[in-house]
Amino acid sequence: MLALQRRHSTVKPLLAILQAGEDDSLLEISKKIAGRIGLNVTQICLTKECTEDEIVEEVLKLNDDPRVHGVHLRLPPASLTSRVLNALKPEKDVDGISDLNMGRLVRGDLSKGFVPPRASAVMDLLEKHGIHLIYVAVMALTFPSEGTPFKRRQSMQNADAVVLLGAKNMDFPHTWVRPGAAVICCEPTLETGSVEYIVIVIKITLYGAPRYLICCSRWLQAQQYQPWHLQCLKLQPLTPVPSDIEISRAQTPKPVDQLAEEIGLLPEELEAYGRSKAKVRLSLLDRLHKQPDGKYVLVAGITPTPLGEGKSTVTIGLVQALSAHLKLNSFACLRQPSQGPTFGVKGGAAGGGYAQVIPMEEFNLHLTGDIHAITAANNLVAAAIDARMLHEATQSDKALFNRLVPSVNGVRRFSPIQISRLHRLGINKIDPASLTPQDVSTFVRLDLDPSKITWQRVVDTNDRFLRKITVGQASTEKGQMRETGFDIAVASEIMAILALADSLEDMRTRLARMVVGTSRSGQPVTAEDLGVSGALVVLMKDAIKPTLMQTLEGTPVFVHAGPFANIAHGNSSVLADKLALKLVGRDGFVVTEAGFGADIGMEKFFNIKCRTSGLRPDVVVLVATVRALKMHGGGSNVSAGAPLPREYIDENLSLVAGGCQSNLRKQIQIAHLFGVPVVVALNVFKTDTQAEIELVCQMAKESGASDAVPCHHWAQGGRGSLDLARAVNEAASRPSNFQFLYNIEMPIVEKIRTIATKVYGADDIELSPEAVAKIDYYNQQGYGSLPICMAKTHLSLSHMPDKKGVPTGFVLPIRDVRASIGAGFIYPLVGTMSTMPGLPTRPCFYDIDLDPVTEEITGLF
Amino acid sequence: MLALQRRHSTVKPLLAILQAGEDDSLLEISKKIAGRIGLNVTQICLTKECTEDEIVEEVLKLNDDPRVHGVHLRLPPASLTSRVLNALKPEKDVDGISDLNMGRLVRGDLSKGFVPPRASAVMDLLEKHGIHLIYVAVMALTFPSEGTPFKRRQSMQNADAVVLLGAKNMDFPHTWVRPGAAVICCEPTLETGSVEYIVIVIKITLYGAPRYLICCSRWLQAQQYQPWHLQCLKLQPLTPVPSDIEISRAQTPKPVDQLAEEIGLLPEELEAYGRSKAKVRLSLLDRLHKQPDGKYVLVAGITPTPLGEGKSTVTIGLVQALSAHLKLNSFACLRQPSQGPTFGVKGGAAGGGYAQVIPMEEFNLHLTGDIHAITAANNLVAAAIDARMLHEATQSDKALFNRLVPSVNGVRRFSPIQISRLHRLGINKIDPASLTPQDVSTFVRLDLDPSKITWQRVVDTNDRFLRKITVGQASTEKGQMRETGFDIAVASEIMAILALADSLEDMRTRLARMVVGTSRSGQPVTAEDLGVSGALVVLMKDAIKPTLMQTLEGTPVFVHAGPFANIAHGNSSVLADKLALKLVGRDGFVVTEAGFGADIGMEKFFNIKCRTSGLRPDVVVLVATVRALKMHGGGSNVSAGAPLPREYIDENLSLVAGGCQSNLRKQIQIAHLFGVPVVVALNVFKTDTQAEIELVCQMAKESGASDAVPCHHWAQGGRGSLDLARAVNEAASRPSNFQFLYNIEMPIVEKIRTIATKVYGADDIELSPEAVAKIDYYNQQGYGSLPICMAKTHLSLSHMPDKKGVPTGFVLPIRDVRASIGAGFIYPLVGTMSTMPGLPTRPCFYDIDLDPVTEEITGLF
Repeated sequence: MLALQRRHSTVKPLLAILQAGEDDSLLEISKKIAGRIGLNVTQICLTKECTEDEIVEEVLKLNDDPRVHGVHLRLPPASLTSRVLNALKPEKDVDGISDLNMGRLVRGDLSKGFVPPRASAVMDLLEKHGIHLIYVAVMALTFPSEGTPFKRRQSMQNADAVVLLGAKNMDFPHTWVRPGAAVICCEPTLETGSVEYIVIVIKITLYGAPRYLICCSRWLQAQQYQPWHLQCLKLQPLTPVPSDIEISRAQTPKPVDQLAEEIGLLPEELEAYGRSKAKVRLSLLDRLHKQPDGKYVLVAGITPTPLGEGKSTVTIGLVQALSAHLKLNSFACLRQPSQGPTFGVKGGAAGGGYAQVIPMEEFNLHLTGDIHAITAANNLVAAAIDARMLHEATQSDKALFNRLVPSVNGVRRFSPIQISRLHRLGINKIDPASLTPQDVSTFVRLDLDPSKITWQRVVDTNDRFLRKITVGQASTEKGQMRETGFDIAVASEIMAILALADSLEDMRTRLARMVVGTSRSGQPVTAEDLGVSGALVVLMKDAIKPTLMQTLEGTPVFVHAGPFANIAHGNSSVLADKLALKLVGRDGFVVTEAGFGADIGMEKFFNIKCRTSGLRPDVVVLVATVRALKMHGGGSNVSAGAPLPREYIDENLSLVAGGCQSNLRKQIQIAHLFGVPVVVALNVFKTDTQAEIELVCQMAKESGASDAVPCHHWAQGGRGSLDLARAVNEAASRPSNFQFLYNIEMPIVEKIRTIATKVYGADDIELSPEAVAKIDYYNQQGYGSLPICMAKTHLSLSHMPDKKGVPTGFVLPIRDVRASIGAGFIYPLVGTMSTMPGLPTRPCFYDIDLDPVTEEITGLF
Repeated sequence: MLALQRRHSTVKPLLAILQAGEDDSLLEISKKIAGRIGLNVTQICLTKECTEDEIVEEVLKLNDDPRVHGVHLRLPPASLTSRVLNALKPEKDVDGISDLNMGRLVRGDLSKGFVPPRASAVMDLLEKHGIHLIYVAVMALTFPSEGTPFKRRQSMQNADAVVLLGAKNMDFPHTWVRPGAAVICCEPTLETGSVEYIVIVIKITLYGAPRYLICCSRWLQAQQYQPWHLQCLKLQPLTPVPSDIEISRAQTPKPVDQLAEEIGLLPEELEAYGRSKAKVRLSLLDRLHKQPDGKYVLVAGITPTPLGEGKSTVTIGLVQALSAHLKLNSFACLRQPSQGPTFGVKGGAAGGGYAQVIPMEEFNLHLTGDIHAITAANNLVAAAIDARMLHEATQSDKALFNRLVPSVNGVRRFSPIQISRLHRLGINKIDPASLTPQDVSTFVRLDLDPSKITWQRVVDTNDRFLRKITVGQASTEKGQMRETGFDIAVASEIMAILALADSLEDMRTRLARMVVGTSRSGQPVTAEDLGVSGALVVLMKDAIKPTLMQTLEGTPVFVHAGPFANIAHGNSSVLADKLALKLVGRDGFVVTEAGFGADIGMEKFFNIKCRTSGLRPDVVVLVATVRALKMHGGGSNVSAGAPLPREYIDENLSLVAGGCQSNLRKQIQIAHLFGVPVVVALNVFKTDTQAEIELVCQMAKESGASDAVPCHHWAQGGRGSLDLARAVNEAASRPSNFQFLYNIEMPIVEKIRTIATKVYGADDIELSPEAVAKIDYYNQQGYGSLPICMAKTHLSLSHMPDKKGVPTGFVLPIRDVRASIGAGFIYPLVGTMSTMPGLPTRPCFYDIDLDPVTEEITGLF
């Protein structure tokens, strides 16, 4: 026990004794033994007359208490009812008296359950004396049926051994015991037996304690790295490959609590949302903080084309191959998609074909409500801004002060959030009466400049008519109208914060410091100034927990956060990655995906996400397709609806070579700038020829990729990505020399220039006067040492969407510069970014429906 | 078995046999027996070489299949691993071989588990012969440990009885059996034993079948009415009563799956959302459809005053008293509150004091996301309207048609939703090519009149600046701007639909027929016309399931839907009430609450909700407070912030009497118009004097109330509402003569007049020209026979908020008339209704925060 503790210094094993009546003798003994073996004991005393309900209530509390590792019920036999015994969690039942543990004992399965300590001691003893009893016989002995005296006597007369459990049990005629039978006495404070037949004295001084030792060491074992025993789901891929929703529906997901148990989560760390998804509590990070992390793999892509690359399917196919086929613990960490496009233009985000997250409809719809929580939080800030401006415009300083710091039962007090604002204003007073009129005015007036409010409202709907609107036109708003707009919910700064926060505390700090606009005197106004930051964290308290789902082959997936990849950094959450890295353990893999091409998503993954999280990547998987490479190699443009030009269907090795020499090579080089090895994953389409496939793999390796392999996960699931999985495993075993592209303390302009020239291949950058002014302002405000989050088109390495391949000889224009102070980055605008998609003439909602009887969804991808 | 089936004709008991290899002999026998005893048998054959994973996968499917009632595993012993045995749900384990059932057997608890059939038969037999074996001994016999041959021999030599399980087991030396021991042979196809010692032949022809009988009858038993065995949570009320959030936090809720089990829900009917709330599947209604309903109680109030009445606390206190103290099954059905006001003006909706729903922060925040789903669905309709108008304004008929009915692989097809639109337009064609240019134009153009769009967007935030806005001001919308506005989410017609729908199918129909505006030619345009109705039902598929929570005393609560009480009907959902009425059973109670005063919420409960659901109320509980009665009796006005006038703090019997004679008496009379008995619940405040309390109770009874009792639930929990519970139980035992106030086929004007004169006490109604025109239009469109949902101030029986007591001599002005065609009612507007609350100068978010370590919320009420 002491040895266990030395190795796991954070573990404070605790045995709870639940007893009726205030008999302290047990506690005395317990404490003595506890001191000797390094065990904490706590005692819960109920009254002697306690009811079954009261006992069960206490037991349930002990079940839920993560500090308690074992429970010993010191209750009169009449109180040990079936309900009481089975209320206790089997894994805390150190005495092994619940039905489940009894059953395990009967079947001789001692790996999981607890054997009642006395039974265990008796068995050991008899074994030593060469008497082999089957377990159940021992059971019969230790747990005499509560039948009639006749029955009890009869059992005893037939028995080879009789176990006396306590002084009371001594009270029976000696003739009940068969001559030659062993009589075994167990007593916590046993001296010597004095009966006439053979007495074997066993000193079990405290029955809880020795069993408890097993309990605790088993609990610690659960913290150790071990290969998962995943119940993988079988795939029987069909040809032709059915629609995504049909494939998803045909597979029955495992219950999420089963999946959780398989990957080493404790039941108390899980919050189920229905049967196939669950949130995972962050306390896991504390429990596993000494566990070494697994390998960290980023899936990025070449510059996107309208032909699609399939980063998500590669990500999912890769973990299916690693977990279900190579039997290496692995986790996929994905972004949660916006619900808006689900009903707009076809295209799911849960992967596709036989590499999907299931149930895909839950993945693509509300999921566990995180985006809804973001919407609520974002719009509360917006409502607070406009309401505050109205109230400031229509009230005197005094009236505002009286309302903001109301007299409750004759006493005025600042709330903590107001005291924090006073501090920032340099007014170090806590008595409201002590403020001068000037202090009052400074305190009550945020004095927001309506033309400099940067905070927009959001909805999770593709609603183009909300891009630019005028609010406040009702007469109740007294003419305070202003122009503003709505973004799609995932464009909210709060989404970027969710993705970057690494604890509840950190999220709270970030939410508080979000800048929503500027005062007329040029000062930034924050969410904290509005008094709303506490409410925001309350709205976001569940959203911060990643959602556990599974792939089509039953391997684990975290879905968490999905910030935009232009005005934000386009990566899933730091917390999901951290949890997953602990869960997979030393030899496992966490595979996550970055938005857009490697020049954008990967660059931000390294410079923003990894800088924030402190995590270091081991491998980059760079996804390419033959078709997209052909376009980068000079293939003609394609447009939706029109038939695909022949060069994309027929073999064309020179276009393929062109794409490899230009865009693919450049993106590999970008990854190497950061010192991370690259494996190229060629996502194979059925029109690709063998020669094309081989050419891509060969040229990728010539460009410096550690390996390059074709992948067939879309048609075959994990089995189709086995080569990729092996290549990634191989690449991850080599040392990575990760380094950031720029030092965070460089001037903002230099950081932007570094990205533009080194990553995009620009000759230089050119700042608009507006951009220059903003940068000066940010420097002045102390925001100069934030990382840079470029808002650039994803369709080209340059700022010109039409320029495929590797554009050169251009100067990158910086139109404007903005800042997400809560998320913690500066984002220069290169061109215009749409933050609110629209609906086409025939949105895909025309095809979406649900069978009211089977509840099956149709038409969703 | 046949008898069981006769009584429960919908039950089709099904035994699944899972076997390895294609041995049909068992199936043959099974089918024969099955025919004889009326049992369906299904057989799942795995290959002989099947892996443990494959077996477990099948077992999990059988666990989840509600049609399968029992599972028999016909597998080689080597395949019956611990994992396989324990994958099987104990309640389907007819052979009793899972650890849990074994343990139950060992402890002699036969009420829940299954005893292995052979063990059971052997026990019966030996019992008959006067041999009393304790259960465990039988266990040892039927489940020989798989030890060494030596151990097996030793066990057999010591045994009083040996059970031979199959032909293979016969293969051992006769000397292994002790002379005089019984040898019992069990074989599916047993003829006669031929061994030399005493042979008792037991004919167990199919082991699954006889046990299955028990299995099935036990399953049916779960359908019968029985008093719940609720694990109630103890209350230890403190004085003074702490804040609502402190009380809520101090109580640990039961795990929701435990609560569900206690009230008779099957595990497959529950979808947990975290640990303390769960959605309940509607399939429950099918399972319990023959179960008689419980009693149906409505909690309504006198006309509200700023002093508060406490209908929610009375509702919760009443079920706490009924369930936890009188031990009568009872359910509270509550509305889900809007999240907006949670951050605006103080005041929770989860009850208060010691009569609350817990955890109250989950009740008041996102809950299970239903309001978020409504927001998403509502705003998808809005986005579809504006996008459609833009596309129609900028495209020719032909371009629209080509996009709406695109050519896919050279073929154009209408989607089902488009065919349905063609039908409504009278174009009975299904080949797109057969449409005339006129048909095409009619089909592609909804031709919405921008000035007649009635659909508004919604957010679940108090955002007053969105009351009136102009949308479409971005250049991308090409000048199609228009004035519109946002309502708070709960004001959406979709919320009213959720509250009135009685199945997924019904909700789908209602969503499809929602009218969003009028075409330029005066035709109503529906959600179905927009092509969005399927997507709406997909977004709402989880929201339709009521959410199960619990009171402070651990009794069940459904939280579901929360429509406005003016522009909608202000009652929680029909489905929650229906589910709850089945769950409480014959002698149980379902208590639900209507918004505003009885003249509004109760009138709509009867005329709209009960008319839609077909449910009939048994009792009305009318809530009053001494303070509110004083105001109705002529007490002076109060205003927020100002000290309360003396008359509300000191005894003032004449004001109390005035309130009783006026408002209280009138509201009792209104309930009697519908033929329902009334119990008055006087919600006692600490300033109320004994004389005041007695006066109210006496006068209430004089006004016709069946009973009138003071309630102390706020300070004492259920114990404080015991008198109310007894009075309600008493009133419910008398026959109720429920009738509607008006016939649904009466003209719209007459229905409005009936409500105004009979309920409100108006002399007559006066219709504006606009109202008259609308009524004509609705009659023309066939909406004439919908019920009426008056949108009137709740602060007075009249339309004048200042008129307390019982105003008389007034004519009710009908300013305008609107219609919610999906929800299914016409709503006349009496005055202006605000459908978007605002934030005060100091919203309560200033006080709301969360401890990042303990995750405890502070300042939430």
